[in-house]
Amino acid sequence: MNTVPVTIIEALTTMVTGLRAVFRTQVSRVARACCVDGVLEPELLDRWQLPSYELAFAAAELLAAETVLRRSVAAGSELRARLGVTFAAELCRGLLARLRQVALDLTDDATALDLADDATAPDLTNDATALGELAADSGWQALCRSVLSGRALDEMGRRVCESQEEIGAIDLAPDLLLAQNEFRRVAAQVVGPLATQIHRQDLTVPEALLAPLREMGVFGLSIPESFGGTANDEHADLMMIVVTEALSEASLAAAGSLITRPEILARALLAGGTAQQKSHWLPLIASGDPLCAIAITEPDYGSDVAGLQLKATRVEGGWLLDGAKTWCTFAGKAGLLMVVARTSPDRALGHRGLSLLLVEKPSYDGHAFDHRPSGGGRLLGKAIPTIGYRGMHSFDLSFEQLFVPEANLVGEAAGMGKGFYFTMAGMVGGRMQTAARALGVMRAALLAARRHAADRKVFKAPLASYSLTRAKLARMAAQFAGCRELTYAVGGGAHDGDGRLESSLIKLFACRSAEWLTREALQIHGASGYAEETPVSRYFVDARVLSIFEGAEETLALKVVARGLFEQALETLEAGTPCDASAGTPCGAS
Amino acid sequence: MNTVPVTIIEALTTMVTGLRAVFRTQVSRVARACCVDGVLEPELLDRWQLPSYELAFAAAELLAAETVLRRSVAAGSELRARLGVTFAAELCRGLLARLRQVALDLTDDATALDLADDATAPDLTNDATALGELAADSGWQALCRSVLSGRALDEMGRRVCESQEEIGAIDLAPDLLLAQNEFRRVAAQVVGPLATQIHRQDLTVPEALLAPLREMGVFGLSIPESFGGTANDEHADLMMIVVTEALSEASLAAAGSLITRPEILARALLAGGTAQQKSHWLPLIASGDPLCAIAITEPDYGSDVAGLQLKATRVEGGWLLDGAKTWCTFAGKAGLLMVVARTSPDRALGHRGLSLLLVEKPSYDGHAFDHRPSGGGRLLGKAIPTIGYRGMHSFDLSFEQLFVPEANLVGEAAGMGKGFYFTMAGMVGGRMQTAARALGVMRAALLAARRHAADRKVFKAPLASYSLTRAKLARMAAQFAGCRELTYAVGGGAHDGDGRLESSLIKLFACRSAEWLTREALQIHGASGYAEETPVSRYFVDARVLSIFEGAEETLALKVVARGLFEQALETLEAGTPCDASAGTPCGAS
Repeated sequence: MNTVPVTIIEALTTMVTGLRAVFRTQVSRVARACCVDGVLEPELLDRWQLPSYELAFAAAELLAAETVLRRSVAAGSELRARLGVTFAAELCRGLLARLRQVALDLTDDATALDLADDATAPDLTNDATALGELAADSGWQALCRSVLSGRALDEMGRRVCESQEEIGAIDLAPDLLLAQNEFRRVAAQVVGPLATQIHRQDLTVPEALLAPLREMGVFGLSIPESFGGTANDEHADLMMIVVTEALSEASLAAAGSLITRPEILARALLAGGTAQQKSHWLPLIASGDPLCAIAITEPDYGSDVAGLQLKATRVEGGWLLDGAKTWCTFAGKAGLLMVVARTSPDRALGHRGLSLLLVEKPSYDGHAFDHRPSGGGRLLGKAIPTIGYRGMHSFDLSFEQLFVPEANLVGEAAGMGKGFYFTMAGMVGGRMQTAARALGVMRAALLAARRHAADRKVFKAPLASYSLTRAKLARMAAQFAGCRELTYAVGGGAHDGDGRLESSLIKLFACRSAEWLTREALQIHGASGYAEETPVSRYFVDARVLSIFEGAEETLALKVVARGLFEQALETLEAGTPCDASAGTPCGAS
Repeated sequence: MNTVPVTIIEALTTMVTGLRAVFRTQVSRVARACCVDGVLEPELLDRWQLPSYELAFAAAELLAAETVLRRSVAAGSELRARLGVTFAAELCRGLLARLRQVALDLTDDATALDLADDATAPDLTNDATALGELAADSGWQALCRSVLSGRALDEMGRRVCESQEEIGAIDLAPDLLLAQNEFRRVAAQVVGPLATQIHRQDLTVPEALLAPLREMGVFGLSIPESFGGTANDEHADLMMIVVTEALSEASLAAAGSLITRPEILARALLAGGTAQQKSHWLPLIASGDPLCAIAITEPDYGSDVAGLQLKATRVEGGWLLDGAKTWCTFAGKAGLLMVVARTSPDRALGHRGLSLLLVEKPSYDGHAFDHRPSGGGRLLGKAIPTIGYRGMHSFDLSFEQLFVPEANLVGEAAGMGKGFYFTMAGMVGGRMQTAARALGVMRAALLAARRHAADRKVFKAPLASYSLTRAKLARMAAQFAGCRELTYAVGGGAHDGDGRLESSLIKLFACRSAEWLTREALQIHGASGYAEETPVSRYFVDARVLSIFEGAEETLALKVVARGLFEQALETLEAGTPCDASAGTPCGAS
């Protein structure tokens, strides 16, 4: 199917396998260092933040390399396979450095680790030695020369510039391919012409854009057909990713992000709503009328959901909401807000004191609103101006004795205290979708850079004729194609359990990649890339939000990914390693 | 003076010395590969762009590491020395990877190099071996553990958070220290309160800001006292750097960049103006009235000065200008434009056909102007909206038969065809100044991030209490302090000849650092960092222009730095190495 030499595939496979082995022992070691009596201790986790952070990114990179080896390199077209090789080789080189850093941390903290007496722990210098051997392997060295040298990148870049084939092409089922083409068409024809204006004038997403998307069923992608949606049991996540990516290519803020909110709300309702709530709300959400918004974050509590304070006080027939929310995207335009509120006065309950309340409100087009419902109370909203991600606006919200009827508590009595869990149901999809959003922005930036490099002449020749430009385009194309392969693999079900870990990995990885790629794309444009009239300047500022929202990078890496990895490692240890508690083994003992 | 162990200083010195040696041979090899008969060939240079680009950045990083070792580590205070160690160690680690990449390119292209027969060329695998040995050195390994481990960075970050001492402090002569404090005060009191508004509303720098700066002599920093300026022979460059940095901290666009234009124009006049022109214009420029602008770049010629097309046609008593310029910053507000124009119709002359013409015009406050002087012709200007660097506005200019009197040709008859050289005289200062601008933006972002980390609580503790935050702050502080040390060293005269190479190195290095540092500072702010109300969002978009203007990164790296390094290397070869031309030595032979 392609002409990638077997020696290259073998060298890559050897390297990835070796890196995975080192990674596994490192995860296991840090996990053990972070626990007392087999339980992860917050204080120790905090102390080990740096290696944990590196391991979280390493987990994403390893998964990406493995996925690309399996999917692109083994069976892809010539371009796909070669981009896969470039991508995997760059990742491996980065991983060698990353795992060396972790090895450093482990060695440095060897005494603190207190593993000296632990017969099950291998010599701590082993990791560094193993990494050194992997790097010195002659197959790997030869691979670096033939894949990562300037000449190889130049040649890869030439292919990227000249290829008529789609960059980042993957195998899609016919209905997904159809959707991709259809949504790319709508994105280009309907969203594209409005995107720059919406961004530069900080407009609210207009009806001219919403109407066709409603018609195409965009708001019901996660909602089963029985509730008026279009979710396909076979590959609902993939469909969401396809549509999100296609729309984000035209505009992250005014199109690609419209689906995130109904996604989270619909999953919360499916997870916890009463039959009555589901049959009432889901068809409305699916139709895109009302539009919806999700109010979780509070001014003093960003990622710390357990600390949320917005208070819901029980009154005759319902609840009164008091408090503040912030960064509530689309709250103005939305007719329905999902509000995470503290329905129990007992603060010690943490996230078990939170429930979900649905607030109905009029839809407002502007940057501020003052809603005083006849039922009493008040809801004030004010958009926060941002450097990018404009069009939906993110609001500061102030709730003052706002009345919400009993029927709008998700799950009613059974939903009390379950708000956190219902929200989590939507977060996996939200993170996959955010990876897809990053893909859309990357594709737009990559294609714009390639176009510009072909058109723009410097020193009398097109930019694309210079090897530095070509190498940049090669790396960008490889990064995009690799992210895409990974995101679609995870979206297609390549994950454990509910996919909480893998969805976080692809979110972390794709968002960071988008920051880097849009920076490079802007640089290729030179000064014109810094002008607001050139779309790449928008891709750059839009991409900057990706590592912040839907789980800030640091929180996701530490609290979800690293923690998840450590828990898995401890389970494995508990299951497989005979641990003698009396010998002072710090954890793994039951 | 500080307690940095001798072993650490020794290990760093060994590493830097070793890296310098490998770098030197690599530069020499690529230089030889790029030349025919001892002369650098454009086509070969283009083919070797990738290693050249890496070597340009390596040159900057090596110089930075050496400078910091000499200045901060050897003799600085505790904080300064320790930040220097962190900085130099990170740089060395990066350099190992960077030079490995160059080694890869050299090995990969060994046959193309055709050095097999060349007895003077050592075995090409030597570089990789040397790098491997440096990395494996036990002193270096120990240094990594004690300086770059998570625990070490955490500890460094704690110092950065708790220190009362200035971060990036260096030794300044009393008058420079006085100026630094005075300009920091004015920046904070006068510029600071206006900066956000100017950025967000894309206003023109107001008189309220210009007036005090005029009074403080900001526009005459490069102009000798005899011409009404304040240039101090002893350390004029350092004074410019001090003032620029202090002002850029409050606003890159509305304050820190005001000096760049008078700097370039004054140096051009000093280099090529007639006695009459100097005595007429320099005092006016020094007084900041008129303000000035520099028109070089054209729509189709960004960095390619030799290709510039704007035409000056000789007429009775002067010249008529026809053509377009773009990215002419401050052209609206300026009363005096320095225009690089083609005064000779012979296109084959390249940059030797260019001269400088001074265009006088009214000062306009808006985003567009239409100037129709009584002398005839027209000059149209339109500001290009940009994502940052707002306040001075960069203009598209269209010249239509615009008359410029004979007396406004810089150097008059003697200046014909010397426009390029006169402009270059100002570019060295311009690049130093741009490094200083990057320093100002970095300082603002670093201090904002440190403040935010101290104030903001997440999961019930200040951000600054977490080791990941502290490690980030440690790296940011080290990078800032290192850039500062390097910029001030070069500004203070640590350069060869006219400083063309070193000024480009510090420009490259500081600008890239500012992009990275502002990204990290924004990330520490979380969502609030993405809000326009938070200054760090401005630092981030402002920093993005730095690698684009005053010599785009790629052009500077390849055409100035790498080329300069290769020329130096060839001179050395020619002077020192006996080359036998008959034996097929490809270059170095005279």
